[in-house]
Amino acid sequence: MTAPATSTMAGGVTAPRGFRAAGVAAGIKANKGLDLALVVSDAPAAAAAVFTTNRAQAAPIVVSREHLAASGGTARAIVVNSGCANACTGDEGLHAAREMAEETARQIGCSAREVLVASTGVIGVALPIDKIRAGLPAAFGALGEGPDRGGASAARAIMTTDPFPKESAARLSLAGGEVLIGGMAKGSGMIEPMMATMLGFVTTDAAVPQALLGRALRAAVDETFNAITVDGECSTNDCVMLLASGASGVTVDDRGYDLFLEGLTSVCRELAMGIVRGGEGATKLVTVTVTGAASIADARKCAKAIANSLLVKTALHGGDPNWGRLIAVAGRAGVAFEPDRAAVTMGSIVLFQDGRPHDENAPQAAEYLKGRNLSVGVNLGAGSTSATVWTCDLSAEYVRINADYRT
Amino acid sequence: MTAPATSTMAGGVTAPRGFRAAGVAAGIKANKGLDLALVVSDAPAAAAAVFTTNRAQAAPIVVSREHLAASGGTARAIVVNSGCANACTGDEGLHAAREMAEETARQIGCSAREVLVASTGVIGVALPIDKIRAGLPAAFGALGEGPDRGGASAARAIMTTDPFPKESAARLSLAGGEVLIGGMAKGSGMIEPMMATMLGFVTTDAAVPQALLGRALRAAVDETFNAITVDGECSTNDCVMLLASGASGVTVDDRGYDLFLEGLTSVCRELAMGIVRGGEGATKLVTVTVTGAASIADARKCAKAIANSLLVKTALHGGDPNWGRLIAVAGRAGVAFEPDRAAVTMGSIVLFQDGRPHDENAPQAAEYLKGRNLSVGVNLGAGSTSATVWTCDLSAEYVRINADYRT
Repeated sequence: MTAPATSTMAGGVTAPRGFRAAGVAAGIKANKGLDLALVVSDAPAAAAAVFTTNRAQAAPIVVSREHLAASGGTARAIVVNSGCANACTGDEGLHAAREMAEETARQIGCSAREVLVASTGVIGVALPIDKIRAGLPAAFGALGEGPDRGGASAARAIMTTDPFPKESAARLSLAGGEVLIGGMAKGSGMIEPMMATMLGFVTTDAAVPQALLGRALRAAVDETFNAITVDGECSTNDCVMLLASGASGVTVDDRGYDLFLEGLTSVCRELAMGIVRGGEGATKLVTVTVTGAASIADARKCAKAIANSLLVKTALHGGDPNWGRLIAVAGRAGVAFEPDRAAVTMGSIVLFQDGRPHDENAPQAAEYLKGRNLSVGVNLGAGSTSATVWTCDLSAEYVRINADYRT
Repeated sequence: MTAPATSTMAGGVTAPRGFRAAGVAAGIKANKGLDLALVVSDAPAAAAAVFTTNRAQAAPIVVSREHLAASGGTARAIVVNSGCANACTGDEGLHAAREMAEETARQIGCSAREVLVASTGVIGVALPIDKIRAGLPAAFGALGEGPDRGGASAARAIMTTDPFPKESAARLSLAGGEVLIGGMAKGSGMIEPMMATMLGFVTTDAAVPQALLGRALRAAVDETFNAITVDGECSTNDCVMLLASGASGVTVDDRGYDLFLEGLTSVCRELAMGIVRGGEGATKLVTVTVTGAASIADARKCAKAIANSLLVKTALHGGDPNWGRLIAVAGRAGVAFEPDRAAVTMGSIVLFQDGRPHDENAPQAAEYLKGRNLSVGVNLGAGSTSATVWTCDLSAEYVRINADYRT
């Protein structure tokens, strides 16, 4: 009997060897919370990133994209602020994002192009670059502090309305030896990454060629961050960045790729699930699975439509097994759908099948819906493919948070 | 100086000559409210209808479509129940919808194909046809009662969670004489008609050839009922039905068409606005106008995306002039968009223009947002076409209504 190839472990971005991190309060947030995070690689790391597809791209997105291209996929550091998105801020915003990278590079002694930047918070407010400039020395002073080398502080410094920090790490046994992957992410509203103000940062101590690193990141993100939704809103600032330090001495090539991807996907999935569990006002994590679809595109489109339906999300919040709302969404989702062969399940409880309600099961379903981890399924009766999307319920608390966000 | 060609007036479906209506309590709703409505034309009327595009079509939709085809577009009556959608109810549901039409036809002494049926309420519950059968004689007994010939009772009998009944009527001066158009509608959740449990019933005493009647209805609905959203949910039961009695003795032909369409659109718009103002939990009516679009399709797509954005709707609910959320939606809407040439306005107050925030205007905008009738505008900076969509804000009350709908 062999040990499992991938196992989860405690920790985040500093679990892999070769990384140090920090999170400090630079005064960007009015509440004086942690708001400036650093992740620094001891040596140049292979770097890959996926960015928001929103046409209004925030200044740090534009700058990180430029730096990644100019460096050929190498980075020494990621610098992130919360409390201000630096989006819709024009040339001034671009200038501030560049200065954020330059100041970080100066502290490290590397080129600005080797620094990736990210921001999250309110859109349309000028980045207080003077506070960031003043805060960076403290961040560098705190770099790598504590038994976790600063990972947990960094994970806290990137939070906005998040109710808890999101960290994840995994250990892989590759042919060449042991490799570690770690990550941190923040939510928690404006979440339907069409990689959205979802930020994810993942590190590994594997040595991974840049092309392979990019391919693995896109594949992992597609199955994880791009398969979640809190409120159907794709942000101007979403990005996931991945740095590979190589400090394990283990190289990932075509042979180790599948296992590396499995580990990376596992870390990304845990972070993505954390974002949904910590979604604004969320009280339940909901796994939506669509089966019996004519195509993978149909399966995903329908699962996203159900996961974003206000009527489905409020029914789940209220613990109401109102399966008719799932059928109504499937019917309007613009996918192949045969109501007479369709089915709706909650957990393993069948509520509708072959055109016939099973309301005798409603009391059992209502009991099931009292839980905090829910699965709902719709079979479209139109084929054999399936897709899964993760979402949360919609509560009055979501409305309260977002009606008062800036007041 | 001539009198305006179209003027609004009091009343609903019975404002035009040749129609009587009624609304009675048949015991379908648990609260014993009015739940069975009749609209009867004294003579065979030209009939046109638009139906939901949801692939899960409710039984009454299937039956009304059949009847309209079989009768060649002639109808004597519309029978509507609230309290049960008769959707996802299989063969039994179809049978019940047919019986509802047959019983109505028997009372009138016409063919069942001359009766249109509609239902609204919970999905997946069997229609209590025995209650409808027992209630119809009372409805016929009450037909045409009172100074308004039963129109107001009928408008109340089609309500579910609607906070108030929706009626509208207009008087047109055509070349041949005066013509009246009247209508009633119900909301108030599961509203984004894609011709959507929105029901609309419109009558006129003009004599309109069936082909022209259908063309006018599709054109009017496109600009009114299909341009509103409460929660982005297209129902299984949506329909708008239009009957023309000809009782005015005035015929609408190609010459009178434009004026007739104007009057019809005016009645449909007032009903559609009523649905939005009465949207579940709504406290504000919001007119979303997108200008500067590259195409009409882009303008409509972006306006719908903004009108359905949870973050925009909650910000407006909270009176927060958070214009960045409108830009973020425009950026993810999948339309041509130039952030540097874009603009966001609330009322006539500019908050963002040419890539630059105008936060000096935020206090004035916050004051404006205290109103109950709001306009927000986004200029995409990508062309010269525009579209308008009407929506409402999102409140904690919406969540409460829909978390508890069946309990």
